[in-house]
Amino acid sequence: MQEKPLILVTNDDGITAPGIRALIKIMNKIGDVVVVAPDKAQSGMGHAITIDNVLTCNPITIDNGPQVEYTCSGTPADCVKMAISEILSRRPDLCVSGINHGANASINVIYSGTMSAAIEAGIEGVPAIGFSLLDFKWDADFTVSEEYVAKITRNALSEGIPEGVVLNVNIPNFKKDEIKGVKVCRQANGYWKEDFDKRKSPFGKEYYWLSGEFVCKDKGQDTDIYALENGYVSIVPVQFDMTAHHMIQKLNTWEL
Amino acid sequence: MQEKPLILVTNDDGITAPGIRALIKIMNKIGDVVVVAPDKAQSGMGHAITIDNVLTCNPITIDNGPQVEYTCSGTPADCVKMAISEILSRRPDLCVSGINHGANASINVIYSGTMSAAIEAGIEGVPAIGFSLLDFKWDADFTVSEEYVAKITRNALSEGIPEGVVLNVNIPNFKKDEIKGVKVCRQANGYWKEDFDKRKSPFGKEYYWLSGEFVCKDKGQDTDIYALENGYVSIVPVQFDMTAHHMIQKLNTWEL
Repeated sequence: MQEKPLILVTNDDGITAPGIRALIKIMNKIGDVVVVAPDKAQSGMGHAITIDNVLTCNPITIDNGPQVEYTCSGTPADCVKMAISEILSRRPDLCVSGINHGANASINVIYSGTMSAAIEAGIEGVPAIGFSLLDFKWDADFTVSEEYVAKITRNALSEGIPEGVVLNVNIPNFKKDEIKGVKVCRQANGYWKEDFDKRKSPFGKEYYWLSGEFVCKDKGQDTDIYALENGYVSIVPVQFDMTAHHMIQKLNTWEL
Repeated sequence: MQEKPLILVTNDDGITAPGIRALIKIMNKIGDVVVVAPDKAQSGMGHAITIDNVLTCNPITIDNGPQVEYTCSGTPADCVKMAISEILSRRPDLCVSGINHGANASINVIYSGTMSAAIEAGIEGVPAIGFSLLDFKWDADFTVSEEYVAKITRNALSEGIPEGVVLNVNIPNFKKDEIKGVKVCRQANGYWKEDFDKRKSPFGKEYYWLSGEFVCKDKGQDTDIYALENGYVSIVPVQFDMTAHHMIQKLNTWEL
Protein backbone atom coordinates (compact mmCIF):
# COMPACT_ATOMS: atom_id res chain seq x y z
CA MET A 1 0.00 0.00 0.00
CA GLN A 2 1.57 3.31 -1.11
CA GLU A 3 -0.76 5.58 0.82
CA LYS A 4 -0.97 5.10 4.57
CA PRO A 5 -4.18 3.34 5.61
CA LEU A 6 -6.94 5.52 7.03
CA ILE A 7 -7.88 4.18 10.47
CA LEU A 8 -11.04 5.16 12.37
CA VAL A 9 -10.66 4.82 16.15
CA THR A 10 -13.57 4.71 18.59
CA ASN A 11 -14.56 3.11 21.90
CA ASP A 12 -17.30 2.93 24.52
CA ASP A 13 -15.46 4.17 27.63
CA GLY A 14 -15.37 7.74 26.28
CA ILE A 15 -12.75 9.70 24.36
CA THR A 16 -10.62 10.49 27.44
CA ALA A 17 -10.29 6.87 28.62
CA PRO A 18 -6.70 5.59 28.90
CA GLY A 19 -7.66 2.59 26.74
CA ILE A 20 -8.49 4.68 23.66
CA ARG A 21 -5.49 6.96 24.25
CA ALA A 22 -3.25 3.86 24.16
CA LEU A 23 -5.02 2.60 21.01
CA ILE A 24 -4.54 5.96 19.25
CA LYS A 25 -0.78 5.87 19.98
CA ILE A 26 -0.47 2.38 18.50
CA MET A 27 -2.50 3.30 15.39
CA ASN A 28 -0.47 6.48 14.78
CA LYS A 29 2.48 4.17 13.97
CA ILE A 30 0.40 2.24 11.41
CA GLY A 31 -1.76 4.76 9.56
CA ASP A 32 -3.53 8.11 9.40
CA VAL A 33 -5.81 8.22 12.41
CA VAL A 34 -9.20 9.88 12.83
CA VAL A 35 -10.89 9.48 16.21
CA VAL A 36 -14.68 9.80 16.57
CA ALA A 37 -15.55 8.69 20.08
CA PRO A 38 -18.29 9.22 22.70
CA ASP A 39 -18.02 12.25 24.99
CA LYS A 40 -18.86 10.04 27.99
CA ALA A 41 -18.75 6.40 29.08
CA GLN A 42 -21.19 4.19 27.15
CA SER A 43 -20.47 0.76 28.60
CA GLY A 44 -23.26 -1.79 28.32
CA MET A 45 -24.90 0.20 25.52
CA GLY A 46 -25.05 -2.85 23.23
CA HIS A 47 -25.94 -1.83 19.72
CA ALA A 48 -28.04 1.17 20.79
CA ILE A 49 -28.48 4.03 18.32
CA THR A 50 -29.95 7.47 18.96
CA ILE A 51 -33.24 7.96 17.13
CA ASP A 52 -35.23 9.98 19.67
CA ASN A 53 -32.71 12.74 20.32
CA VAL A 54 -30.25 14.97 18.48
CA LEU A 55 -26.51 14.33 18.21
CA THR A 56 -23.58 16.70 18.41
CA CYS A 57 -20.11 16.04 17.04
CA ASN A 58 -17.25 18.50 17.52
CA PRO A 59 -13.48 18.65 16.92
CA ILE A 60 -11.39 18.30 20.05
CA THR A 61 -7.70 18.16 21.02
CA ILE A 62 -6.87 15.93 23.96
CA ASP A 63 -3.19 15.16 23.65
CA ASN A 64 -0.36 15.84 21.23
CA GLY A 65 -0.19 13.63 18.19
CA PRO A 66 -0.90 13.49 14.48
CA GLN A 67 -4.45 12.16 14.95
CA VAL A 68 -7.56 14.22 14.20
CA GLU A 69 -10.25 13.89 16.88
CA TYR A 70 -13.97 14.45 17.23
CA THR A 71 -16.12 13.92 20.29
CA CYS A 72 -19.72 12.84 19.77
CA SER A 73 -22.74 12.90 22.08
CA GLY A 74 -24.05 9.54 20.86
CA THR A 75 -23.50 5.85 21.39
CA PRO A 76 -20.51 3.92 19.97
CA ALA A 77 -22.65 2.81 16.99
CA ASP A 78 -23.72 6.45 16.43
CA CYS A 79 -20.03 7.49 16.39
CA VAL A 80 -19.22 5.02 13.62
CA LYS A 81 -22.24 6.08 11.54
CA MET A 82 -21.33 9.75 12.04
CA ALA A 83 -17.68 9.15 11.15
CA ILE A 84 -18.36 7.23 7.95
CA SER A 85 -21.26 9.38 6.77
CA GLU A 86 -20.23 12.90 7.89
CA ILE A 87 -16.66 13.23 9.15
CA LEU A 88 -14.29 11.18 7.02
CA SER A 89 -13.31 12.36 3.55
CA ARG A 90 -13.07 8.76 2.32
CA ARG A 91 -14.04 5.29 3.53
CA PRO A 92 -11.64 4.13 6.25
CA ASP A 93 -9.46 1.09 5.55
CA LEU A 94 -10.05 -0.14 9.09
CA CYS A 95 -12.06 0.68 12.20
CA VAL A 96 -10.61 -0.21 15.60
CA SER A 97 -12.60 0.08 18.83
CA GLY A 98 -11.23 0.05 22.38
CA ILE A 99 -9.04 -0.74 24.08
CA ASN A 100 -11.94 -1.57 26.39
CA HIS A 101 -11.39 -1.46 30.12
CA GLY A 102 -12.70 -4.96 30.88
CA ALA A 103 -13.46 -8.26 29.12
CA ASN A 104 -15.78 -8.63 26.14
CA ALA A 105 -15.45 -12.39 25.76
CA SER A 106 -18.26 -14.96 25.46
CA ILE A 107 -21.83 -13.56 25.51
CA ASN A 108 -20.51 -10.09 26.42
CA VAL A 109 -20.11 -9.42 22.70
CA ILE A 110 -23.90 -8.81 22.77
CA TYR A 111 -23.83 -6.22 25.58
CA SER A 112 -20.59 -4.51 24.57
CA GLY A 113 -20.51 -0.97 23.23
CA THR A 114 -16.93 -1.58 22.10
CA MET A 115 -18.00 -4.49 19.93
CA SER A 116 -21.16 -2.74 18.71
CA ALA A 117 -18.94 -0.02 17.22
CA ALA A 118 -16.85 -2.64 15.44
CA ILE A 119 -19.99 -4.48 14.28
CA GLU A 120 -21.53 -1.22 13.00
CA ALA A 121 -18.38 -0.63 10.90
CA GLY A 122 -18.61 -4.21 9.63
CA ILE A 123 -22.27 -3.73 8.65
CA GLU A 124 -21.19 -0.68 6.65
CA GLY A 125 -18.52 -2.75 4.87
CA VAL A 126 -15.49 -1.44 6.79
CA PRO A 127 -13.07 -4.08 8.21
CA ALA A 128 -13.17 -3.77 11.98
CA ILE A 129 -11.64 -5.03 15.21
CA GLY A 130 -12.69 -4.56 18.83
CA PHE A 131 -9.93 -4.78 21.47
CA SER A 132 -10.52 -5.38 25.19
CA LEU A 133 -8.15 -5.81 28.13
CA LEU A 134 -9.31 -7.95 31.04
CA ASP A 135 -8.84 -5.13 33.55
CA PHE A 136 -11.78 -2.80 34.14
CA LYS A 137 -9.77 -0.33 36.25
CA TRP A 138 -9.44 3.20 34.84
CA ASP A 139 -5.64 3.06 35.46
CA ALA A 140 -5.24 -0.33 33.78
CA ASP A 141 -1.81 -0.91 32.21
CA PHE A 142 -2.12 -1.15 28.42
CA THR A 143 1.62 -1.53 27.65
CA VAL A 144 1.48 -5.34 27.36
CA SER A 145 -1.46 -5.04 24.96
CA GLU A 146 0.50 -2.86 22.51
CA GLU A 147 2.43 -5.64 20.79
CA TYR A 148 -0.67 -7.78 20.21
CA VAL A 149 -2.90 -4.91 19.09
CA ALA A 150 -0.26 -3.81 16.57
CA LYS A 151 0.39 -7.33 15.26
CA ILE A 152 -3.29 -8.18 14.81
CA THR A 153 -4.01 -4.80 13.18
CA ARG A 154 -1.12 -5.20 10.68
CA ASN A 155 -2.34 -8.69 9.80
CA ALA A 156 -5.90 -7.42 9.29
CA LEU A 157 -4.64 -4.70 6.94
CA SER A 158 -2.44 -7.03 4.89
CA GLU A 159 -4.65 -10.14 4.85
CA GLY A 160 -8.04 -8.40 4.87
CA ILE A 161 -11.12 -9.34 6.86
CA PRO A 162 -13.89 -10.78 4.66
CA GLU A 163 -17.23 -8.97 4.37
CA GLY A 164 -19.72 -9.88 7.09
CA VAL A 165 -17.07 -10.60 9.73
CA VAL A 166 -15.42 -8.45 12.43
CA LEU A 167 -12.84 -9.49 15.04
CA ASN A 168 -13.33 -9.59 18.81
CA VAL A 169 -9.90 -9.53 20.50
CA ASN A 170 -9.50 -9.96 24.25
CA ILE A 171 -6.17 -9.64 26.06
CA PRO A 172 -5.60 -11.32 29.43
CA ASN A 173 -4.39 -9.14 32.31
CA PHE A 174 -1.06 -10.95 32.56
CA LYS A 175 2.55 -9.80 32.61
CA LYS A 176 4.36 -9.69 29.26
CA ASP A 177 6.30 -12.92 29.72
CA GLU A 178 3.24 -14.76 31.07
CA ILE A 179 1.25 -14.34 27.84
CA LYS A 180 1.66 -17.52 25.78
CA GLY A 181 0.51 -16.19 22.39
CA VAL A 182 -2.66 -15.70 20.36
CA LYS A 183 -5.48 -18.21 19.87
CA VAL A 184 -8.31 -18.08 17.33
CA CYS A 185 -11.43 -19.13 19.24
CA ARG A 186 -15.17 -19.50 19.18
CA GLN A 187 -17.45 -17.56 21.54
CA ALA A 188 -17.86 -19.54 24.79
CA ASN A 189 -21.42 -20.46 25.83
CA GLY A 190 -21.92 -18.35 28.94
CA TYR A 191 -24.39 -15.95 30.54
CA TRP A 192 -24.81 -13.53 33.44
CA LYS A 193 -26.65 -14.84 36.48
CA GLU A 194 -28.34 -11.72 37.81
CA ASP A 195 -28.40 -10.75 41.43
CA PHE A 196 -30.28 -7.46 41.71
CA ASP A 197 -29.25 -5.41 44.72
CA LYS A 198 -32.51 -4.02 46.17
CA ARG A 199 -32.23 -0.78 48.16
CA LYS A 200 -34.41 1.97 49.59
CA SER A 201 -34.03 5.64 48.71
CA PRO A 202 -33.94 8.29 51.47
CA PHE A 203 -37.63 8.80 50.60
CA GLY A 204 -38.53 5.14 51.15
CA LYS A 205 -38.81 4.14 47.51
CA GLU A 206 -37.40 0.82 46.37
CA TYR A 207 -34.80 0.72 43.64
CA TYR A 208 -32.35 -1.79 42.22
CA TRP A 209 -28.78 -2.05 41.01
CA LEU A 210 -28.19 -4.63 38.31
CA SER A 211 -25.36 -6.92 39.34
CA GLY A 212 -24.50 -10.56 38.90
CA GLU A 213 -21.82 -13.08 38.10
CA PHE A 214 -20.70 -14.52 34.79
CA VAL A 215 -21.36 -18.24 34.42
CA CYS A 216 -19.50 -20.21 31.74
CA LYS A 217 -21.21 -23.52 31.04
CA ASP A 218 -18.86 -24.30 28.18
CA LYS A 219 -15.97 -26.72 28.92
CA GLY A 220 -14.57 -26.59 25.36
CA GLN A 221 -10.88 -25.85 24.96
CA ASP A 222 -11.53 -23.91 21.74
CA THR A 223 -13.40 -21.02 23.44
CA ASP A 224 -12.30 -17.46 24.18
CA ILE A 225 -12.83 -17.99 27.92
CA TYR A 226 -10.53 -21.05 27.94
CA ALA A 227 -7.83 -19.20 25.96
CA LEU A 228 -7.93 -16.17 28.28
CA GLU A 229 -7.85 -18.27 31.44
CA ASN A 230 -4.79 -20.05 30.08
CA GLY A 231 -2.80 -16.94 29.22
CA TYR A 232 -3.62 -16.50 25.54
CA VAL A 233 -4.90 -13.47 23.66
CA SER A 234 -8.23 -14.58 22.11
CA ILE A 235 -9.54 -13.66 18.67
CA VAL A 236 -13.15 -14.56 17.87
CA PRO A 237 -14.41 -13.85 14.34
CA VAL A 238 -17.91 -12.40 14.82
CA GLN A 239 -20.71 -12.30 12.25
CA PHE A 240 -23.89 -10.24 12.20
CA ASP A 241 -25.95 -12.67 10.16
CA MET A 242 -27.63 -13.98 13.30
CA THR A 243 -29.73 -16.59 11.45
CA ALA A 244 -29.69 -19.97 13.19
CA HIS A 245 -29.50 -21.78 9.84
CA HIS A 246 -29.55 -25.19 11.56
CA MET A 247 -33.06 -24.46 12.88
CA ILE A 248 -34.70 -23.69 9.52
CA GLN A 249 -35.48 -27.32 8.62
CA LYS A 250 -37.09 -27.99 12.02
CA LEU A 251 -39.23 -24.82 11.82
CA ASN A 252 -40.48 -25.92 8.42
CA THR A 253 -42.17 -28.90 10.11
CA TRP A 254 -44.38 -26.62 12.26
CA GLU A 255 -48.12 -26.38 11.45
CA LEU A 256 -48.29 -22.78 10.30
CA MET B 1 -49.43 -29.46 29.86
CA GLN B 2 -51.89 -29.56 32.82
CA GLU B 3 -50.90 -26.19 34.24
CA LYS B 4 -51.31 -23.16 32.03
CA PRO B 5 -48.00 -21.94 30.64
CA LEU B 6 -46.46 -18.90 32.33
CA ILE B 7 -45.83 -16.25 29.68
CA LEU B 8 -43.63 -13.17 30.21
CA VAL B 9 -44.62 -10.25 27.96
CA THR B 10 -42.39 -7.25 27.24
CA ASN B 11 -41.59 -4.79 24.45
CA ASP B 12 -39.53 -1.73 23.54
CA ASP B 13 -42.26 0.79 22.69
CA GLY B 14 -43.26 1.11 26.35
CA ILE B 15 -45.96 -0.56 28.43
CA THR B 16 -48.80 1.65 27.14
CA ALA B 17 -48.11 1.03 23.43
CA PRO B 18 -51.06 -0.46 21.50
CA GLY B 19 -48.74 -3.22 20.23
CA ILE B 20 -48.07 -4.69 23.68
CA ARG B 21 -51.70 -4.22 24.72
CA ALA B 22 -52.71 -6.35 21.70
CA LEU B 23 -50.05 -8.95 22.54
CA ILE B 24 -51.26 -9.20 26.16
CA LYS B 25 -54.84 -9.87 24.97
CA ILE B 26 -53.66 -12.68 22.69
CA MET B 27 -51.47 -14.24 25.42
CA ASN B 28 -54.28 -14.11 28.00
CA LYS B 29 -56.07 -16.76 25.87
CA ILE B 30 -52.99 -19.02 25.92
CA GLY B 31 -51.49 -18.81 29.40
CA ASP B 32 -50.94 -16.96 32.66
CA VAL B 33 -49.48 -13.61 31.72
CA VAL B 34 -47.00 -11.43 33.59
CA VAL B 35 -45.98 -8.17 31.91
CA VAL B 36 -42.67 -6.47 32.76
CA ALA B 37 -42.19 -3.67 30.26
CA PRO B 38 -40.37 -0.33 29.97
CA ASP B 39 -42.08 2.78 31.31
CA LYS B 40 -41.17 4.68 28.14
CA ALA B 41 -40.25 4.04 24.50
CA GLN B 42 -36.89 2.29 24.09
CA SER B 43 -36.68 1.87 20.32
CA GLY B 44 -33.21 1.48 18.87
CA MET B 45 -31.81 0.52 22.27
CA GLY B 46 -30.18 -2.62 20.87
CA HIS B 47 -29.00 -4.89 23.64
CA ALA B 48 -28.31 -2.03 26.06
CA ILE B 49 -28.36 -2.79 29.78
CA THR B 50 -28.31 -0.32 32.68
CA ILE B 51 -25.07 -0.56 34.65
CA ASP B 52 -24.43 3.09 35.50
CA ASN B 53 -27.80 3.95 37.00
CA VAL B 54 -30.44 2.51 39.29
CA LEU B 55 -33.61 0.76 38.15
CA THR B 56 -37.15 0.94 39.47
CA CYS B 57 -39.86 -1.64 38.89
CA ASN B 58 -43.41 -1.18 40.17
CA PRO B 59 -46.81 -2.88 39.84
CA ILE B 60 -49.25 -1.06 37.55
CA THR B 61 -52.77 -1.54 36.22
CA ILE B 62 -53.40 -0.26 32.71
CA ASP B 63 -56.48 -2.09 31.49
CA ASN B 64 -58.80 -4.80 32.69
CA GLY B 65 -57.59 -8.33 32.28
CA PRO B 66 -56.17 -11.29 34.16
CA GLN B 67 -52.55 -10.27 33.51
CA VAL B 68 -50.23 -9.01 36.25
CA GLU B 69 -48.19 -5.97 35.18
CA TYR B 70 -45.00 -4.20 36.22
CA THR B 71 -43.44 -1.12 34.68
CA CYS B 72 -39.68 -0.81 34.76
CA SER B 73 -37.38 2.18 34.26
CA GLY B 74 -34.80 0.18 32.30
CA THR B 75 -34.20 -1.10 28.79
CA PRO B 76 -36.01 -4.11 27.29
CA ALA B 77 -33.06 -6.37 28.25
CA ASP B 78 -33.20 -4.97 31.82
CA CYS B 79 -36.93 -5.79 31.98
CA VAL B 80 -36.30 -9.43 31.11
CA LYS B 81 -33.46 -9.74 33.63
CA MET B 82 -35.63 -8.09 36.29
CA ALA B 83 -38.62 -10.32 35.51
CA ILE B 84 -36.70 -13.60 35.60
CA SER B 85 -34.55 -12.73 38.59
CA GLU B 86 -36.87 -10.64 40.80
CA ILE B 87 -40.53 -10.65 39.74
CA LEU B 88 -41.60 -14.11 38.60
CA SER B 89 -42.21 -16.87 41.11
CA ARG B 90 -40.98 -19.51 38.64
CA ARG B 91 -39.17 -19.59 35.30
CA PRO B 92 -41.52 -18.58 32.48
CA ASP B 93 -42.37 -21.16 29.82
CA LEU B 94 -42.12 -18.49 27.15
CA CYS B 95 -41.16 -14.84 26.71
CA VAL B 96 -42.87 -12.82 23.97
CA SER B 97 -41.79 -9.31 23.01
CA GLY B 98 -43.73 -6.76 20.96
CA ILE B 99 -45.83 -6.41 18.99
CA ASN B 100 -43.34 -3.85 17.75
CA HIS B 101 -44.62 -0.81 15.87
CA GLY B 102 -42.39 -1.20 12.80
CA ALA B 103 -40.23 -3.80 11.05
CA ASN B 104 -37.38 -5.71 12.67
CA ALA B 105 -36.36 -7.71 9.62
CA SER B 106 -32.86 -8.10 8.17
CA ILE B 107 -30.05 -6.28 10.04
CA ASN B 108 -32.60 -4.50 12.26
CA VAL B 109 -32.46 -7.50 14.59
CA ILE B 110 -29.18 -5.92 15.82
CA TYR B 111 -30.68 -2.48 16.60
CA SER B 112 -34.03 -3.70 17.89
CA GLY B 113 -35.02 -3.38 21.53
CA THR B 114 -37.89 -5.80 20.86
CA MET B 115 -35.49 -8.49 19.67
CA SER B 116 -32.94 -7.73 22.41
CA ALA B 117 -35.60 -8.59 25.00
CA ALA B 118 -36.28 -11.89 23.25
CA ILE B 119 -32.55 -12.59 22.90
CA GLU B 120 -31.97 -11.80 26.59
CA ALA B 121 -34.64 -14.37 27.50
CA GLY B 122 -32.98 -16.86 25.16
CA ILE B 123 -29.58 -16.28 26.78
CA GLU B 124 -31.21 -17.05 30.14
CA GLY B 125 -32.60 -20.31 28.75
CA VAL B 126 -36.22 -19.17 28.29
CA PRO B 127 -37.85 -19.87 24.88
CA ALA B 128 -38.61 -16.51 23.28
CA ILE B 129 -40.24 -14.82 20.30
CA GLY B 130 -40.14 -11.21 19.10
CA PHE B 131 -43.13 -10.00 17.08
CA SER B 132 -43.14 -6.92 14.83
CA LEU B 133 -45.76 -5.40 12.54
CA LEU B 134 -44.56 -3.44 9.50
CA ASP B 135 -46.42 -0.30 10.56
CA PHE B 136 -44.61 2.16 12.82
CA LYS B 137 -47.70 4.30 13.47
CA TRP B 138 -48.95 4.48 17.07
CA ASP B 139 -52.49 3.68 15.88
CA ALA B 140 -51.39 0.71 13.77
CA ASP B 141 -54.03 -2.00 13.39
CA PHE B 142 -52.92 -5.22 15.12
CA THR B 143 -56.09 -7.28 14.43
CA VAL B 144 -54.64 -9.06 11.37
CA SER B 145 -51.54 -9.98 13.41
CA GLU B 146 -53.58 -11.80 16.07
CA GLU B 147 -54.10 -15.07 14.19
CA TYR B 148 -50.41 -15.42 13.30
CA VAL B 149 -49.11 -14.41 16.73
CA ALA B 150 -51.41 -16.98 18.38
CA LYS B 151 -50.55 -19.77 15.93
CA ILE B 152 -46.79 -19.26 16.18
CA THR B 153 -46.96 -19.00 19.98
CA ARG B 154 -48.96 -22.24 20.31
CA ASN B 155 -46.51 -24.03 18.04
CA ALA B 156 -43.56 -22.75 20.07
CA LEU B 157 -45.16 -24.02 23.29
CA SER B 158 -46.00 -27.46 21.90
CA GLU B 159 -42.91 -28.05 19.72
CA GLY B 160 -40.36 -26.17 21.86
CA ILE B 161 -37.61 -23.85 20.70
CA PRO B 162 -34.15 -25.38 21.14
CA GLU B 163 -31.61 -23.76 23.47
CA GLY B 164 -29.56 -21.02 21.86
CA VAL B 165 -32.29 -19.96 19.40
CA VAL B 166 -35.06 -17.34 19.54
CA LEU B 167 -37.60 -16.44 16.87
CA ASN B 168 -37.87 -13.13 15.01
CA VAL B 169 -41.38 -12.81 13.54
CA ASN B 170 -42.35 -9.95 11.22
CA ILE B 171 -45.88 -9.41 9.93
CA PRO B 172 -46.52 -7.45 6.72
CA ASN B 173 -48.93 -4.52 6.88
CA PHE B 174 -51.45 -6.18 4.57
CA LYS B 175 -55.17 -6.86 4.80
CA LYS B 176 -56.21 -10.25 6.19
CA ASP B 177 -56.99 -11.87 2.83
CA GLU B 178 -53.83 -10.48 1.23
CA ILE B 179 -51.50 -12.36 3.60
CA LYS B 180 -50.40 -15.54 1.86
CA GLY B 181 -49.10 -17.47 4.87
CA VAL B 182 -45.96 -17.93 6.95
CA LYS B 183 -42.42 -18.45 5.63
CA VAL B 184 -39.36 -19.61 7.57
CA CYS B 185 -36.52 -17.39 6.36
CA ARG B 186 -32.94 -16.35 6.81
CA GLN B 187 -31.95 -12.76 7.74
CA ALA B 188 -31.56 -10.70 4.54
CA ASN B 189 -28.18 -9.03 3.96
CA GLY B 190 -29.03 -5.33 4.30
CA TYR B 191 -27.88 -2.17 6.03
CA TRP B 192 -28.89 1.45 6.72
CA LYS B 193 -27.37 4.06 4.48
CA GLU B 194 -27.13 7.07 6.77
CA ASP B 195 -28.12 10.54 5.81
CA PHE B 196 -27.56 12.80 8.83
CA ASP B 197 -29.80 15.84 8.87
CA LYS B 198 -27.54 18.73 9.97
CA ARG B 199 -29.26 21.69 11.66
CA LYS B 200 -28.44 24.76 13.73
CA SER B 201 -29.84 25.40 17.20
CA PRO B 202 -31.36 28.83 18.05
CA PHE B 203 -27.95 29.52 19.64
CA GLY B 204 -26.01 28.78 16.46
CA LYS B 205 -24.69 25.37 17.48
CA GLU B 206 -24.67 22.55 14.93
CA TYR B 207 -26.49 19.33 15.70
CA TYR B 208 -27.65 16.27 13.80
CA TRP B 209 -30.60 13.95 13.46
CA LEU B 210 -29.75 10.39 12.49
CA SER B 211 -31.80 9.35 9.48
CA GLY B 212 -31.28 7.19 6.47
CA GLU B 213 -32.71 4.55 4.19
CA PHE B 214 -32.62 0.80 4.38
CA VAL B 215 -30.68 -0.86 1.57
CA CYS B 216 -31.21 -4.57 0.86
CA LYS B 217 -28.38 -5.97 -1.26
CA ASP B 218 -29.73 -9.48 -0.97
CA LYS B 219 -31.70 -10.85 -3.96
CA GLY B 220 -32.32 -14.26 -2.35
CA GLN B 221 -35.90 -15.53 -2.27
CA ASP B 222 -35.31 -17.23 1.09
CA THR B 223 -34.90 -13.96 3.06
CA ASP B 224 -37.25 -12.23 5.48
CA ILE B 225 -37.33 -9.10 3.29
CA TYR B 226 -38.43 -11.13 0.23
CA ALA B 227 -41.13 -12.93 2.23
CA LEU B 228 -42.52 -9.69 3.66
CA GLU B 229 -42.53 -7.91 0.30
CA ASN B 230 -44.47 -10.84 -1.13
CA GLY B 231 -47.17 -10.91 1.53
CA TYR B 232 -45.83 -13.57 3.90
CA VAL B 233 -45.29 -13.46 7.64
CA SER B 234 -41.54 -14.11 8.13
CA ILE B 235 -39.97 -16.22 10.89
CA VAL B 236 -36.18 -16.06 11.24
CA PRO B 237 -34.56 -18.32 13.84
CA VAL B 238 -31.93 -16.14 15.54
CA GLN B 239 -28.86 -17.34 17.45
CA PHE B 240 -26.62 -15.46 19.85
CA ASP B 241 -23.50 -17.49 19.23
CA MET B 242 -22.14 -14.82 16.90
CA THR B 243 -18.95 -16.78 16.04
CA ALA B 244 -18.21 -16.72 12.31
CA HIS B 245 -17.12 -20.37 12.39
CA HIS B 246 -16.27 -20.32 8.66
CA MET B 247 -13.54 -17.73 9.33
CA ILE B 248 -11.61 -19.69 11.98
CA GLN B 249 -9.51 -21.70 9.50
CA LYS B 250 -8.48 -18.59 7.58
CA LEU B 251 -7.53 -16.71 10.78
CA ASN B 252 -5.34 -19.62 11.80
CA THR B 253 -3.11 -18.86 8.75
CA TRP B 254 -2.27 -15.35 10.06
CA GLU B 255 1.27 -14.70 11.41
CA LEU B 256 0.43 -14.10 15.07
